[in-house]
Amino acid sequence: MAQKPAIPKGTRDFSQLEMARRNYIFNTIREVFGKYGFAQIETPAMELMSTLMGKYGEEGDKLLFRIQNSGEKANEAPEKGLRYDLTVPFARYVVQHRDTIQFPFKRYQIQPVWRADRPQKGRYREFYQCDVDVVGTNSLLAEVELIQIVEEVYRRLGIRVSLHLNNRKILAGIAEVIGAPDMMIDITVAIDKLDKIGVEAVNAELVERGLSNEAVAALQPILNLSGSNNEKLSQLRTILAGSEVGLKGVDELEEVFNLLSAVDCPLTIELDLCLARGLNYYTGAIFEVKALDVQMGSITGGGRYDNLTGIFGMPDVSGVGISFGADRIYDVLTELNLYPEELQSATQLLFACFGEEELKFAMQAATALRARELRVEVYPEAVKMKRQMAYADAKHIPYVAIIGSNELQEKKVMLKNMLSGEQSLVSVDEIQL
Amino acid sequence: MAQKPAIPKGTRDFSQLEMARRNYIFNTIREVFGKYGFAQIETPAMELMSTLMGKYGEEGDKLLFRIQNSGEKANEAPEKGLRYDLTVPFARYVVQHRDTIQFPFKRYQIQPVWRADRPQKGRYREFYQCDVDVVGTNSLLAEVELIQIVEEVYRRLGIRVSLHLNNRKILAGIAEVIGAPDMMIDITVAIDKLDKIGVEAVNAELVERGLSNEAVAALQPILNLSGSNNEKLSQLRTILAGSEVGLKGVDELEEVFNLLSAVDCPLTIELDLCLARGLNYYTGAIFEVKALDVQMGSITGGGRYDNLTGIFGMPDVSGVGISFGADRIYDVLTELNLYPEELQSATQLLFACFGEEELKFAMQAATALRARELRVEVYPEAVKMKRQMAYADAKHIPYVAIIGSNELQEKKVMLKNMLSGEQSLVSVDEIQL
Repeated sequence: MAQKPAIPKGTRDFSQLEMARRNYIFNTIREVFGKYGFAQIETPAMELMSTLMGKYGEEGDKLLFRIQNSGEKANEAPEKGLRYDLTVPFARYVVQHRDTIQFPFKRYQIQPVWRADRPQKGRYREFYQCDVDVVGTNSLLAEVELIQIVEEVYRRLGIRVSLHLNNRKILAGIAEVIGAPDMMIDITVAIDKLDKIGVEAVNAELVERGLSNEAVAALQPILNLSGSNNEKLSQLRTILAGSEVGLKGVDELEEVFNLLSAVDCPLTIELDLCLARGLNYYTGAIFEVKALDVQMGSITGGGRYDNLTGIFGMPDVSGVGISFGADRIYDVLTELNLYPEELQSATQLLFACFGEEELKFAMQAATALRARELRVEVYPEAVKMKRQMAYADAKHIPYVAIIGSNELQEKKVMLKNMLSGEQSLVSVDEIQL
Repeated sequence: MAQKPAIPKGTRDFSQLEMARRNYIFNTIREVFGKYGFAQIETPAMELMSTLMGKYGEEGDKLLFRIQNSGEKANEAPEKGLRYDLTVPFARYVVQHRDTIQFPFKRYQIQPVWRADRPQKGRYREFYQCDVDVVGTNSLLAEVELIQIVEEVYRRLGIRVSLHLNNRKILAGIAEVIGAPDMMIDITVAIDKLDKIGVEAVNAELVERGLSNEAVAALQPILNLSGSNNEKLSQLRTILAGSEVGLKGVDELEEVFNLLSAVDCPLTIELDLCLARGLNYYTGAIFEVKALDVQMGSITGGGRYDNLTGIFGMPDVSGVGISFGADRIYDVLTELNLYPEELQSATQLLFACFGEEELKFAMQAATALRARELRVEVYPEAVKMKRQMAYADAKHIPYVAIIGSNELQEKKVMLKNMLSGEQSLVSVDEIQL
């Protein structure tokens, strides 16, 4: 009857140490979100297939996990699927609860999502997303506060980052002024490779993608933009003079920098015209955050979308949001060894156990320490001392309290610091961890 | 194209207020678990069907949600299913990770589970379970600490409860001494109704279930047990004198009361021979907790099981655990109006917005207050004052800070207490919430 236990490929168990570290990340993010007035919602793991289908492109549709009731016939099309991201459920939530929501609606959501992707290193079929969005306002204060949130989250976590900022309207303006308004995506895909393959290869690819030589020539001053963010913006204002949408993009970025200057945000922000994520839905600002001291892709990203809820019948609701990549943040903290030492052990003190009377005294002492909000275990069996110490060691418990017959008589405990090996005989009230 | 948005039946969205309340419950429970040395794990939402099937009886198998990859043919049997409880995944986890786990293993787990039950009031297809278990020890200290955890969780939540305690070995002993060792389940199912239908109806049902008149007669002294827990135990010791397993059960309960007396646990504990939950898997203690001031079923329950992991090929690992019913606790707190007032609002202070310069000052002030760990919003648009106040009202934000041209000039804010209506002109440093 015995089976060799396993879990589905692409999924993970999280051990106690992994959970302590993940909770450290999530709690840090949660606290910062809360300070900016964002509050949490949750949506069900399963959504109707009609909610999910067609929202992620053809490729995405194929990656949906479908859910079958046992009652359903095997050849019936399942009517439910697992959440694929937090954005579509959020849009659905906003429309469904529009009458009770206060707009601007500031929400965050931290839940797992599921994708039937081919599992590989760093890519899972179940992973947490951690999204923060404000919908129902065009104000660029929202962009600025998200930037402040990025700064504070990574400052607290101790990760040095830079934030790359772009605006989709500027990309549209560029395509317009070089005479290829329909080729914005092709252009951005190509110039995205500038750092990797160099300007000549980019130009060759642009021609290959159907851009005229004149257009490629017109693009060159844009590829050569340099200087500070403000300098780049002022050059862009000249270059995009003929494009209404392009100038709107420049205005928006300028206003973001202008508002940011009021709050003195100590974050490296780089205006990056090559940043082109989410062009299918972003309509204004585009964000991406990279760790400076680790080779890793984007650890946070997002942008503004002008029509999130249109697909569910509620047009003209503009919003802006970002998503923190918990798995990558986890890896960055691991690689840089930045986890607080105290995450190593959930327990601060272990009472060793020698016999019934000693156990009762240990229980009383533990109860008193827990009343002081300390995290305390009592070893439950009077097994060999060595085994109890090995348990404390393996769990990185920093203190062990020993109660032998002498201690019992004196109503004291021998408190051992497991790191230094120091021991001292103290009363329970005197215990300081 | 627009769809009327909805969610699958039996599932729920949780609003910001609901989440604040749920997090209050979960965080309270989590903190108490932590003080007793329990630490969190998580397992995947999906398990292999081979892990799940056959673990919940025939009825349970039918209630499993099955998961289909899009790649799978519709008529292939799905190889994955959604987690149905936290116990089977925990058993699988213990066996799979046995080489890296420290035993006794003290873990808690708070995750949703899914059951394809017919949805009805109070019964959902997705709901959270909140389990705490220790495996790998026979020590009854584990039972005692779980009782202490129950006491502390409900004390913190402000819910008056009583804990009902039984032991499966006593039930087996009773069946043995009345001469019907194979009918333990029938007997317990019948006597479970004692309170509701009275002793005569119970006796009639026992006869109907096939118990002899002699056995029913022999059972009467047990149904008539009265007095304190210790008095009941001493009567049981006499009654069960002929049953080894029954006496073992009496010993175990006595030891639990004995250890408990050492820590002075202020919880009403009632030895309840009618308590018969989980008889398919519990082998020792059986717990159930009921709220005293609300009509509601059990809000916490659990027990000891001697062979949790046997089904996955790891025999003889004894454990004991309890599960907190988050949805019912939520309902009890709602009915008794016990939620802390501050859960009403995620935000402590809203800065109203009147124009660009005022906005910048508000942003600076908000940034300074957030540095003091306060939760602060800035209204993002210079809309009518009335609308901004209505936003604060609807969100129960207790303070609004108003910055007009006078305030801007003086570098002060007009701080309004939304409850009392009081206003005062203060500098940002002087703001106390």
